[in-house]
Amino acid sequence: MTSAMQPEDTPALRKLYADFKDHHLNPLWTQLGDLMPRQPRPKAVPHVWKWGDLFPLAQASGDLVPVGRGGERRAIGLANPGFGGEAYVSPTLWCAIQYLGPKETAPEHRHSQNAFRFVVEGEGVWTVVNGDPVRMSRGDFLLTPGWNFHGHHNETDQPMAWIDGLDIPFSYNNDVGFFEFGSERVTDYATPRFSRSERLWTYPGLRPLSGLENTVSSPIAAYRWEHTDRALTEQLLLEEEGQPATVEQGHAAVRFVNPTTGGDVMPTIRAEFHRLRDGAETAARREVGSSVFQVFDGRGAVVMGGVTYELEKGDIFVVPSWIPWSLEARTQFDLFRFSDAPIIERLNFNRTLVESGN
Amino acid sequence: MTSAMQPEDTPALRKLYADFKDHHLNPLWTQLGDLMPRQPRPKAVPHVWKWGDLFPLAQASGDLVPVGRGGERRAIGLANPGFGGEAYVSPTLWCAIQYLGPKETAPEHRHSQNAFRFVVEGEGVWTVVNGDPVRMSRGDFLLTPGWNFHGHHNETDQPMAWIDGLDIPFSYNNDVGFFEFGSERVTDYATPRFSRSERLWTYPGLRPLSGLENTVSSPIAAYRWEHTDRALTEQLLLEEEGQPATVEQGHAAVRFVNPTTGGDVMPTIRAEFHRLRDGAETAARREVGSSVFQVFDGRGAVVMGGVTYELEKGDIFVVPSWIPWSLEARTQFDLFRFSDAPIIERLNFNRTLVESGN
Amino acid sequence: MTSAMQPEDTPALRKLYADFKDHHLNPLWTQLGDLMPRQPRPKAVPHVWKWGDLFPLAQASGDLVPVGRGGERRAIGLANPGFGGEAYVSPTLWCAIQYLGPKETAPEHRHSQNAFRFVVEGEGVWTVVNGDPVRMSRGDFLLTPGWNFHGHHNETDQPMAWIDGLDIPFSYNNDVGFFEFGSERVTDYATPRFSRSERLWTYPGLRPLSGLENTVSSPIAAYRWEHTDRALTEQLLLEEEGQPATVEQGHAAVRFVNPTTGGDVMPTIRAEFHRLRDGAETAARREVGSSVFQVFDGRGAVVMGGVTYELEKGDIFVVPSWIPWSLEARTQFDLFRFSDAPIIERLNFNRTLVESGN
Amino acid sequence: MTSAMQPEDTPALRKLYADFKDHHLNPLWTQLGDLMPRQPRPKAVPHVWKWGDLFPLAQASGDLVPVGRGGERRAIGLANPGFGGEAYVSPTLWCAIQYLGPKETAPEHRHSQNAFRFVVEGEGVWTVVNGDPVRMSRGDFLLTPGWNFHGHHNETDQPMAWIDGLDIPFSYNNDVGFFEFGSERVTDYATPRFSRSERLWTYPGLRPLSGLENTVSSPIAAYRWEHTDRALTEQLLLEEEGQPATVEQGHAAVRFVNPTTGGDVMPTIRAEFHRLRDGAETAARREVGSSVFQVFDGRGAVVMGGVTYELEKGDIFVVPSWIPWSLEARTQFDLFRFSDAPIIERLNFNRTLVESGN
Repeated sequence: MTSAMQPEDTPALRKLYADFKDHHLNPLWTQLGDLMPRQPRPKAVPHVWKWGDLFPLAQASGDLVPVGRGGERRAIGLANPGFGGEAYVSPTLWCAIQYLGPKETAPEHRHSQNAFRFVVEGEGVWTVVNGDPVRMSRGDFLLTPGWNFHGHHNETDQPMAWIDGLDIPFSYNNDVGFFEFGSERVTDYATPRFSRSERLWTYPGLRPLSGLENTVSSPIAAYRWEHTDRALTEQLLLEEEGQPATVEQGHAAVRFVNPTTGGDVMPTIRAEFHRLRDGAETAARREVGSSVFQVFDGRGAVVMGGVTYELEKGDIFVVPSWIPWSLEARTQFDLFRFSDAPIIERLNFNRTLVESGN
Repeated sequence: MTSAMQPEDTPALRKLYADFKDHHLNPLWTQLGDLMPRQPRPKAVPHVWKWGDLFPLAQASGDLVPVGRGGERRAIGLANPGFGGEAYVSPTLWCAIQYLGPKETAPEHRHSQNAFRFVVEGEGVWTVVNGDPVRMSRGDFLLTPGWNFHGHHNETDQPMAWIDGLDIPFSYNNDVGFFEFGSERVTDYATPRFSRSERLWTYPGLRPLSGLENTVSSPIAAYRWEHTDRALTEQLLLEEEGQPATVEQGHAAVRFVNPTTGGDVMPTIRAEFHRLRDGAETAARREVGSSVFQVFDGRGAVVMGGVTYELEKGDIFVVPSWIPWSLEARTQFDLFRFSDAPIIERLNFNRTLVESGN
Repeated sequence: MTSAMQPEDTPALRKLYADFKDHHLNPLWTQLGDLMPRQPRPKAVPHVWKWGDLFPLAQASGDLVPVGRGGERRAIGLANPGFGGEAYVSPTLWCAIQYLGPKETAPEHRHSQNAFRFVVEGEGVWTVVNGDPVRMSRGDFLLTPGWNFHGHHNETDQPMAWIDGLDIPFSYNNDVGFFEFGSERVTDYATPRFSRSERLWTYPGLRPLSGLENTVSSPIAAYRWEHTDRALTEQLLLEEEGQPATVEQGHAAVRFVNPTTGGDVMPTIRAEFHRLRDGAETAARREVGSSVFQVFDGRGAVVMGGVTYELEKGDIFVVPSWIPWSLEARTQFDLFRFSDAPIIERLNFNRTLVESGN
Repeated sequence: MTSAMQPEDTPALRKLYADFKDHHLNPLWTQLGDLMPRQPRPKAVPHVWKWGDLFPLAQASGDLVPVGRGGERRAIGLANPGFGGEAYVSPTLWCAIQYLGPKETAPEHRHSQNAFRFVVEGEGVWTVVNGDPVRMSRGDFLLTPGWNFHGHHNETDQPMAWIDGLDIPFSYNNDVGFFEFGSERVTDYATPRFSRSERLWTYPGLRPLSGLENTVSSPIAAYRWEHTDRALTEQLLLEEEGQPATVEQGHAAVRFVNPTTGGDVMPTIRAEFHRLRDGAETAARREVGSSVFQVFDGRGAVVMGGVTYELEKGDIFVVPSWIPWSLEARTQFDLFRFSDAPIIERLNFNRTLVESGN
């Protein structure tokens, strides 16, 4: 569209624009299409990080970079190619592979940023959240909501790697973050099978009377793979029995929620687990907000913006806002997903468009 | 207090009062103290029903009264002695012992009234809720929220009894109830170990993506004893480890909740399970609203309004509004509790007074 | 329906029923149809109280009955003919005409019961709510939410009468009420035109920063007729301009709300004002819950359960639960309405049936 | 703090860092202090824009730049000096002076971005929001919530200027915005004194029965100065009478709210009006999130980060996140304020620190 508002380039206009600059002003009419596009036009691009690349690089950093106070974590952020090097996987989300060598400790600290970990393989690390030791094992989803002290330690002779998800870019861009150092060693080196938070909170539909106040984030420190797997298995069995249980044909899914409210686990991050039957395809959809997936098991593909990316275990991909995406399963196909949907929904910017056909 | 408003008994006053009556009027000043007492003055009285009386009477009714359409249920309501025979355990709540003989079926129907069942002993009955067969076993808490079709059938050669809880008096007094007959036989005689509702909904902190709309009542049809028992066991273990987990010393407790909201299972009825260590005593408290308890296991006592009632397995007692009550455990002491607390709280009439000492 | 559960009347059965009685039990099968009817079957009946009867009787009581401590209020309750004399207008609601003679004071007290006043005529009384003097004038709707101290005094040489609405029956039946006497004289005899509550809270869409905590009940002590009248007038004008503004053709209506939430003014009582154009008729509807209307101005009729009742200024009528009702305007017809809808809705018992035609 | 994680600069490390870059990775340990500072460290800086500069530049643009389709609005954005020229007043907020010449029309469009206007002087423009013409006059606060069509036209022979506030930077950074062109002329050139939205919605505590569904944003299109002024005047009078009514001594304030919820007018923007008595000073406070103020009347100063800025009518200043700020009144001092507080609060990042003394 040509604009009625592009005036003739006269000395007077140049003087006006120079005056704008001098007074820290900037007119809307020269930049409207960029600032307020017809639909989201993300700088972030669709991208896949291969686990086959990530894990060796994490190992190499384990050899070269000690973990400790100051740097705090041996975490390597996924830097969306659209952002010119910044370690943001999307405009709101941070995703990193974190690596802890045998017997290492990552010191305790806390921050306003909400954090989780998801374990695609390995075991032997405990994360200590506000003094409660939480075992980390394959398939577990673990929470460290904002302002909870936390550190990690590896009890074994094997290194362990997992992914971290945080709202670092959102916090950074909007100036909301606080950070505080804690103990240089974790405050409890016990290695219980289940954290105290789990022993209190992980009975379906049961709420301790000592925990009747709703909490901003979930009080469950660890969502165990055993439960996630069974939930998905049952959805597919129920579908076979002709019962409504899946989101779409061949596509089982659960959301991780805060049991005190039934809502998202943390105020800024949604987390889900998806399972597709071998051969299943999802509808193509566009959503406002950005998502990150990690393949947990099986093989398949994601189609983003018309391009098909083949995927295997551990691969991570990002779907920027309003990019059409769909999944295709080459085997049974399990994926962990997290997104900024709570931000989008709480501020009423959510829209979804399900496209006909795939 | 003597009232300034008790006028002299004159012919004019008698005429006035007669005129009031003729015009369907009734003055406040003659009845204020009754209508608006200084504190709740319930007609309902504290009372204990002994399981040793209830069960044989239920058996006898099994011999004499067929179950079927019209009467619908072989349920015998607990009639608070303060109400002159009405089958209300409290002004808001109904509690009955229901009995189903070998191979019997109680036909399907639905009603606005919210209902649950709690099983103090036995097994072999399935309740079919909107077509979903739900096993009933000792310790299970089972829901039939308002307007869900439901019937029961006994698969075995043994009779089975359990308690029903409903908001029948509340619905009756406030004219809110609808009722509809359904199938004379239950719509599905399958006897699965777990209902479809459980297969979808009973994973801690996991919510199916096909169930993202919040529901007025819990979608969980059965809360199993295994989970309740473990939750209580862990609370007491955590207490021994010096962790905050119990409501008061030696007193573990859970509330049954709707996983879509974290709130009560149904809009009018709260349900909880309490466990006291051998020798523990609870603080004495007064609460607005009425509660019913059934002893599930162990021996102990309840003190209500200063009177001590000894209790054993199956005994049921009612605590009317604002009557001080406390529990004493003679062994490990397990009690199921239900109450009208959601009514009281949603209408902001709740008050609690914890008395010093016991 | 004949019941399969009416067993033969044998000595054994009689013995069983006698045993039930001895043990404070009462079977469901003999009373199901009464306790759980197909649809609400209220004891309360539709009824009209004529202002032409009410006001003279209130005057007569002003001559014969002093107002003061103990009886507290010269209030004459409307006793639904279905209740055998009890001063309940419906199972949940109390409605009374209150009368205060020249220079009289009704002493201060407070109670859990939620109360309001509506003024169909007159002026000159101030009600003092937690120390804040509130003028009462024709058309005003005035709140005394639960547990606020309040008393009234008449500044003039003329008596004044108005109606009171409370949740006394609900509180009484469910044992939730507390009551406390306050000062024998009101604590402030000032007669300001506007209460402090109005000076803080009655600017459209403006909330004082000193009042950011939501309150259970509205902080507005007086809803003035001037605003109600203008709101209704504008709705009818907008309707004439072809804009959506009325609830149905020729029927303007507003709800009085708590500005901190947008919800009902008090947890148990809804209040509305309705205006019909001359000649308008409303659709016939059935609703769960009970309502009371007072004609504020004009002439018309209400049809309840197929019976037409002619109405004029001051007349009060009650619509019990699920009774079909509609209004017909013989002139412009203004009605104040209050109901127990918040109770019904918060407990999810609400249903409405709009009948085709009238 | 020196970091344990700054490894020796070896060829192997350089190789590792190069590999990171090649694979779109970026380690946390080299940038933690920047990404996750101890407290918010905004790029935005405190800044004041003088009305004496803004208005003449807007006039000049009125002479040189036609208004019309494409550029859409003659709006000149305030560019925070910390952002290097981008037209963001803070990381979340846009603030512009908009100017409309005699008889001009700004065409209709709609966008996801939430918008408001505040009028510091002048009159004669109507903004047409979803077909409803809304008069704009001095002191009025006017809403255009996301996805409402809107255009403006000036009825007079005088130009008019006002400020616009939007969440453009937030929408842009997080990829949530949609935009659609509408009519090139406004759809209704009527010039009523009050919009239809006001005629329906601006009666204190009254809600039309035709508007019982809660809305994401306020249905009130215009908050009039008359009400704002009276609300502030009464707060200060009540304070003089010894009543609690102000936020702090000599400081009256109101929040503009959505009457359907009592909450903020739009999901991303809070708006308030503050009045200080001559000589009053506010406490110094730090808040998470950014605010913009415009002086509406009087003279005074703001202290930001220890620097005092003198202010007069029309001056606009921004307070970035966590910068300490306080106000000082040299006369009665009136300020309009808007902020991103709803974003901060809905995502639970809110913190406030009131500093002792000033």
